[in-house]
Amino acid sequence: MSAPPAVTLPHHDIEFRVRYAETDQMGVVYHTNYLVWCEVGRTDFIRARGMSYADIERAGVGLAVSELSARFHAAARYDNLIRVRTTLAEIRSRSITFDYVITNAETGERFVTARTALVSIDRAGKLVALPQGVRALFETTP
Amino acid sequence: MSAPPAVTLPHHDIEFRVRYAETDQMGVVYHTNYLVWCEVGRTDFIRARGMSYADIERAGVGLAVSELSARFHAAARYDNLIRVRTTLAEIRSRSITFDYVITNAETGERFVTARTALVSIDRAGKLVALPQGVRALFETTP
Amino acid sequence: MSAPPAVTLPHHDIEFRVRYAETDQMGVVYHTNYLVWCEVGRTDFIRARGMSYADIERAGVGLAVSELSARFHAAARYDNLIRVRTTLAEIRSRSITFDYVITNAETGERFVTARTALVSIDRAGKLVALPQGVRALFETTP
Amino acid sequence: MSAPPAVTLPHHDIEFRVRYAETDQMGVVYHTNYLVWCEVGRTDFIRARGMSYADIERAGVGLAVSELSARFHAAARYDNLIRVRTTLAEIRSRSITFDYVITNAETGERFVTARTALVSIDRAGKLVALPQGVRALFETTP
Repeated sequence: MSAPPAVTLPHHDIEFRVRYAETDQMGVVYHTNYLVWCEVGRTDFIRARGMSYADIERAGVGLAVSELSARFHAAARYDNLIRVRTTLAEIRSRSITFDYVITNAETGERFVTARTALVSIDRAGKLVALPQGVRALFETTP
Repeated sequence: MSAPPAVTLPHHDIEFRVRYAETDQMGVVYHTNYLVWCEVGRTDFIRARGMSYADIERAGVGLAVSELSARFHAAARYDNLIRVRTTLAEIRSRSITFDYVITNAETGERFVTARTALVSIDRAGKLVALPQGVRALFETTP
Repeated sequence: MSAPPAVTLPHHDIEFRVRYAETDQMGVVYHTNYLVWCEVGRTDFIRARGMSYADIERAGVGLAVSELSARFHAAARYDNLIRVRTTLAEIRSRSITFDYVITNAETGERFVTARTALVSIDRAGKLVALPQGVRALFETTP
Repeated sequence: MSAPPAVTLPHHDIEFRVRYAETDQMGVVYHTNYLVWCEVGRTDFIRARGMSYADIERAGVGLAVSELSARFHAAARYDNLIRVRTTLAEIRSRSITFDYVITNAETGERFVTARTALVSIDRAGKLVALPQGVRALFETTP
């Protein structure tokens, strides 16, 4: 009897270098910038699946961060090549949750792990169902 | 027999206005800026207790965020008068944890609740004991 | 025969402390943050004259920076008390120009001098006349 | 008699997408972010020539912006693919000047033109000669 196939959650990688503007006087990346990078990761994930987050907004729906948590394991430095791995953690009728692992793309050192939950809201800020297009993006296999 | 006196955890308030630079194209404050404000809150808390965070760093010790969590309840807008209430949640030998409630100072509307744990590190990034001066700041009554 | 009264251009001061997030690994304020402060200065100037920049935008007109220049004389540091002095330099039918002097409010040390020209645009980004209300703000004596 | 060879100033291009965090409530890129991108452009220019700006700083010399000017021609938007073209404008004993043209990499639309002068300073903030290594980077042909 064979084992069931391993389930791989959809994920996506993006790489870029730390900007000088992102450092602080401790000589490392200022901590909130990792959370900006999480957004860079998830919007690139959406783009890689064939939709632009800009298009989603033009259709009148925004994805607003409703919850966020992060653990800071080690400090990234100016000019480090950063990799953000974004994984779909959960998708529900009105929310979508992503996990992130931020590492040094050259050494593999782990900087930050984080999770964000996003809710879909209309232009008035009211909770609405996730656009079908967004759900569809993540319901196909990676 | 009388009830024990209510214990009030030390806390501190600071107010300022939302900057235009802090908004995003959704027309509200970009979410990571609330976490920058948490830092404004905790450093002002330390200053109000008679010590400057700049002095702590000059003494060779930094306080680095090791964990962070936040819930986003409502969206602040440009020019809103923001109040950050910072409360000491826990102090241990090498870490200190603060809670934050970010509200509209004029209406009381609650925008964000957050918690950050900070660890004390030396210039090489190694964990060290919290400076005695920092501990002392919070061991006196508010 | 008496001398004509000295002409004082309208100006406005605002003070605040340097945030940790505004520093970089050189140990000083990252240079573009001074330009964010210029905006804090000019919007507070407008507010002090009785109008909110938020109101201007709600009326459908934005003020967009069209030109900017700055000289960096000395470096501000974390926790410095900053003073931004904003002076009205010129007002024309579709543009308004401000000058800024950014100093250490405690020592008087001059950090940055800057100038920005802003043009008024409608929601489609087209140049329009400055709202009469904005012109009026600056046509009264300081 | 043949014409002299056309002189091409050394220049360098880098491309990246506009981040959501870089927009403001006018629905376009907040103006100081273009100046952050200029720095991304010049540090990548230096890297492309075989030196890392991080190495320059480790050698004890920083390049600090001393003057800056910019003209804003059109507004970039979220998710636009940005191209920053950095050109060496002038190199002197203690300063180096770069010009920038920021465009939409897909349409060629010009967003911003800018110039920054940088001076070399030691760790105490005192003006020093540009490191020979930096001069050498730009004295070879592109």
